[in-house]
Amino acid sequence: MTRAFNLALFGAGRIGAVHGANIAARADTSLACVIDPDEEAAAALAVRHRSEVADEATALGDAAVDAIVIASATSTHAELIEKGLTAGKAVFCEKPIDLSVGKVRSCLAAVEGSPSPLFVAFNRRFDPAVAEIRQQILAGTIGAVELVTVTSKDPGAPPIGYLRDSGGLFRDMTIHDFDMCRFLLGEDPVTVSAAAAALTDQAIAAEGDIDTAAVTMQCASGRMAVITNSRRASFGYDQRVEVHGSLGTLRTENLPQHHLVHESGSGVVRPKPHHFFIERYAQSYRAELDHFVAVLRGEQQPTPTGVDGLKALLLAEAAYLSLQSGRQVEVEAPSGAVQ
Amino acid sequence: MTRAFNLALFGAGRIGAVHGANIAARADTSLACVIDPDEEAAAALAVRHRSEVADEATALGDAAVDAIVIASATSTHAELIEKGLTAGKAVFCEKPIDLSVGKVRSCLAAVEGSPSPLFVAFNRRFDPAVAEIRQQILAGTIGAVELVTVTSKDPGAPPIGYLRDSGGLFRDMTIHDFDMCRFLLGEDPVTVSAAAAALTDQAIAAEGDIDTAAVTMQCASGRMAVITNSRRASFGYDQRVEVHGSLGTLRTENLPQHHLVHESGSGVVRPKPHHFFIERYAQSYRAELDHFVAVLRGEQQPTPTGVDGLKALLLAEAAYLSLQSGRQVEVEAPSGAVQ
Amino acid sequence: MTRAFNLALFGAGRIGAVHGANIAARADTSLACVIDPDEEAAAALAVRHRSEVADEATALGDAAVDAIVIASATSTHAELIEKGLTAGKAVFCEKPIDLSVGKVRSCLAAVEGSPSPLFVAFNRRFDPAVAEIRQQILAGTIGAVELVTVTSKDPGAPPIGYLRDSGGLFRDMTIHDFDMCRFLLGEDPVTVSAAAAALTDQAIAAEGDIDTAAVTMQCASGRMAVITNSRRASFGYDQRVEVHGSLGTLRTENLPQHHLVHESGSGVVRPKPHHFFIERYAQSYRAELDHFVAVLRGEQQPTPTGVDGLKALLLAEAAYLSLQSGRQVEVEAPSGAVQ
Amino acid sequence: MTRAFNLALFGAGRIGAVHGANIAARADTSLACVIDPDEEAAAALAVRHRSEVADEATALGDAAVDAIVIASATSTHAELIEKGLTAGKAVFCEKPIDLSVGKVRSCLAAVEGSPSPLFVAFNRRFDPAVAEIRQQILAGTIGAVELVTVTSKDPGAPPIGYLRDSGGLFRDMTIHDFDMCRFLLGEDPVTVSAAAAALTDQAIAAEGDIDTAAVTMQCASGRMAVITNSRRASFGYDQRVEVHGSLGTLRTENLPQHHLVHESGSGVVRPKPHHFFIERYAQSYRAELDHFVAVLRGEQQPTPTGVDGLKALLLAEAAYLSLQSGRQVEVEAPSGAVQ
Repeated sequence: MTRAFNLALFGAGRIGAVHGANIAARADTSLACVIDPDEEAAAALAVRHRSEVADEATALGDAAVDAIVIASATSTHAELIEKGLTAGKAVFCEKPIDLSVGKVRSCLAAVEGSPSPLFVAFNRRFDPAVAEIRQQILAGTIGAVELVTVTSKDPGAPPIGYLRDSGGLFRDMTIHDFDMCRFLLGEDPVTVSAAAAALTDQAIAAEGDIDTAAVTMQCASGRMAVITNSRRASFGYDQRVEVHGSLGTLRTENLPQHHLVHESGSGVVRPKPHHFFIERYAQSYRAELDHFVAVLRGEQQPTPTGVDGLKALLLAEAAYLSLQSGRQVEVEAPSGAVQ
Repeated sequence: MTRAFNLALFGAGRIGAVHGANIAARADTSLACVIDPDEEAAAALAVRHRSEVADEATALGDAAVDAIVIASATSTHAELIEKGLTAGKAVFCEKPIDLSVGKVRSCLAAVEGSPSPLFVAFNRRFDPAVAEIRQQILAGTIGAVELVTVTSKDPGAPPIGYLRDSGGLFRDMTIHDFDMCRFLLGEDPVTVSAAAAALTDQAIAAEGDIDTAAVTMQCASGRMAVITNSRRASFGYDQRVEVHGSLGTLRTENLPQHHLVHESGSGVVRPKPHHFFIERYAQSYRAELDHFVAVLRGEQQPTPTGVDGLKALLLAEAAYLSLQSGRQVEVEAPSGAVQ
Repeated sequence: MTRAFNLALFGAGRIGAVHGANIAARADTSLACVIDPDEEAAAALAVRHRSEVADEATALGDAAVDAIVIASATSTHAELIEKGLTAGKAVFCEKPIDLSVGKVRSCLAAVEGSPSPLFVAFNRRFDPAVAEIRQQILAGTIGAVELVTVTSKDPGAPPIGYLRDSGGLFRDMTIHDFDMCRFLLGEDPVTVSAAAAALTDQAIAAEGDIDTAAVTMQCASGRMAVITNSRRASFGYDQRVEVHGSLGTLRTENLPQHHLVHESGSGVVRPKPHHFFIERYAQSYRAELDHFVAVLRGEQQPTPTGVDGLKALLLAEAAYLSLQSGRQVEVEAPSGAVQ
Repeated sequence: MTRAFNLALFGAGRIGAVHGANIAARADTSLACVIDPDEEAAAALAVRHRSEVADEATALGDAAVDAIVIASATSTHAELIEKGLTAGKAVFCEKPIDLSVGKVRSCLAAVEGSPSPLFVAFNRRFDPAVAEIRQQILAGTIGAVELVTVTSKDPGAPPIGYLRDSGGLFRDMTIHDFDMCRFLLGEDPVTVSAAAAALTDQAIAAEGDIDTAAVTMQCASGRMAVITNSRRASFGYDQRVEVHGSLGTLRTENLPQHHLVHESGSGVVRPKPHHFFIERYAQSYRAELDHFVAVLRGEQQPTPTGVDGLKALLLAEAAYLSLQSGRQVEVEAPSGAVQ
């Protein structure tokens, strides 16, 4: 049996608990320690998985720790990436790297050339159906990709306090869809055009934020992608992608909570989809870890990378510019080499 | 038993044959005569339904004829509308009135105040599922409409010769979707933004036309509509609409050719949707006639009207302007009264 | 253009009206006349399709009449079959030939050797999905057929007066499913085992009839078929078949009334299926006529035949015997040659 | 935080590994030790979950062990149940208790009156959709249950060696469906009628076993249940149940491997269902543990019980008698009190 990799987990909140459980459940990974300023949360998670609590310095300084998983607050990501890679640890970082383009650029510049791998975890790419779409596109099953459509709607807006620090709809929520479109287009968009409004809650408008949006992107080849967003889908979490190709179309459907059908005089009723991301993307979180372990074994290159994280953010910036100007906006191309 | 209305049919081509059969099949309508420059086609249709062939003047001059159904070439529509209404006949006209905004405007001006009704037949509105969506919206089932999404893809481009006279993608094909968006938004869009390309066939690009498009519209209230189009869906005719409201979502699915499921080692396979409009909208054509008979009985006002036809065309014009300018374009508001 | 066949229609009731409209709508058939003891019904149908009313003797004696369509009361079928074939007309007869095995046998004996064709119209076989299943079985797509499952439930029981003359559930309703099982098994069952009860309405029990049943049949090869029936499905007409083969499974799904999906906090709701046979099997009735015209042209042999009608009835008889005895019952094999 | 219950796991094979992982993943259960004659398997599982290996006597004698989970070979179940309950441990036992009615009866007699709870784990009952059906039935949503239909097909027969010791199709595989029917009927069947054959593999016939079956059961109230089985569904694991009630129908659909749709000229293709029970019933295994923990807390009574296990086996015996006799067979009613 091959040895298990030791992973230190930063963040014992909701998404940290998901990664912690996944690490503990595998035969080839071990939850070395949990680090969180909320000591009670860290302790509870550590006890549950027969692991232990540590502080940042101890975790980063422990030669037995192979990698760190960053599931802490967004504002800490960039710094932990730099510290982790500098300490020679492989890094698994929850998206985003940061909400500021400048901070992302300086973080990536700082770690450029690092021998340790950096993996930025966009969960959508690891959904089994989405991953299969990508494989089928690469295999040529649907011919040339012509039009990508992403429907992404949350079950309800987060608290206004959260929204205030979120960076706004495009940086907080659409960021996933920007990455998804690049992933499925197989080509970087060169223009972005956006329309948006605050329709679900006037408090969102009062914050200067938006909750409903339609974004169109086009690549140099002419192929296009369209994203529609809302902060509130009445029936839960609406997560669908569709790739129209010259030879076929591949699309995902929402995942129902279970496979029950109720037929009566009122019609044919199936359950709503999973309510939100923890349940909806449970498989994705496991698959992210599959990939990260393959990276640790040297069998795969990490993807998405830091540059992917930057590019998704640049699309969000272009979308905001389009909203302000009423124009199609050209997307800034990162100066560095791109995957 | 109430008497049957006598309808004169202009056009014995593909869509004329559909309307002719529907007229003949009803107890409350009678196919008075068929008019077509192609005398053989007119005769075949007349024989099939135990009707007769006539010329334009005879049909329009026959006091026994209650109404005319215009299913002839697009270039003849405006003139026949004027002649029919002037002759005191009710008019059922296949969309569009004309490809030129000027000609549509002058036609509508010429017939303004006519006591006889004019019905412009956009088939999508009469699809049972679409009509039901509209009813549910009016009933408040899904609350406030926030986002309308229309997917409309043909199974393949028509011959280049047809395209040359078609007015281009937006006037020929998207025109249906523009009308659909107005119908489902319940509000006129004020801005249009379009992206497009010729991706399916270089001959289309050579004609200066496009075959793949994404159009976003926004209303004064902030609500939006998004249309995606392609001239070629690999699996046939892709016709879906989706209305996201504050309390619920209503959407249509493609109609499979039949309800067979084949399960094997290759997966779970269902048939493709109906290949094209004659089969897909067979029920719509019958429902158009239901509505027109109700208009003839004085029970309903005709809808869509001539102004609806004009407004859909103005959205197409705005989409072309957006393509050229790379900007959101404001939509021209018709000067006349609007339904 | 080939000449149209002249068809005389016996019966202007609900199913007669369906066949009359289908005959009138085709270019290759003509509704010669309508015969019905209810003269008002006959006249209304004749006027609607620009046909005329006739009496039995005139219709059968008219050399211009190529064929008769029997859609009159069940008790008249056997006699009309004999008269029609004797008069040299091709015969299209609604199922069943008769409710009595003896009467069916004597009718078939009387017309044996008739040069004119007899077609017994079991509508299920002509459903496009069912017909496709049969074609796929013959083509070997699913390998050896091993298990056929038929779900057949009505939206509600007919009036007790109807039930009293219906022959009981197995002869009136399951008869369709017996024929369907033979059609899909491709082999005659040799044993039948039945369980049943009256669960939906005590008035049915009071008549000595049943409303809920499960019937299992087995062929000499070992392959089996299972039918489940109810007189009352809460959501409408439940009509599904499933064929499990060694290489694949083919199954039909209910046809929704339209293709609308309503998603909200209550779940994902689709419309109920078509309520009953006139709507559900509308395509079947048209396809029956396609087949009958091919028979008239000499291009196809009629199927199902009179013997098929007899065999379905013999399965119903065996099912009743099984109910009484609590045993598997061997099915009587008709003495005549079988298709 | 409430304390975690310590569970000793007997059996480190495929299903043992599932239960072991589920025990280790919860905050309220702890994997105390693993017992298996295959010491390597036991050790691997213990290491993976930071637990330890033990022998039977140690595990049963350890006062810190609250409960045992029996996932070892079927032949060991009855003895371990007795030993576990005698030692004062709560018992979670994989179905079946034993393949012999006599041995099941004597086991149940031996532990009658034991203060510790015995839970017999039939996984189907714990499928979220099936559990929901049961809740809806109890809530009256579908009115009176009239007909239960269970489709249960494996993706392929196990090796002949396994079949030889399996007790045959009805005791090995249909046993799940017998329990399911009782669970959904809410009433014990009083008669059983079976038809069966060996169609998929002549080697199965050579063993005197069957691979394809249809079983009908009827209760005193008249309500019925129908099971169809095959050892080989071409597309994988076919697991569906359907309950037809007076006011509605509840049914489950197969769970696709993921929610991808591929549309092309070949049709509309979705993935196959999960291949077999470990994946298909992953949620059930977790829900079984939810229930068992509630039993350990004294919040719920264990269900299914040992008597439920016996009753399912008695239905299997009746099915074999029906096959031999060609008759409906009355089901033996256990002498003891029944849940």
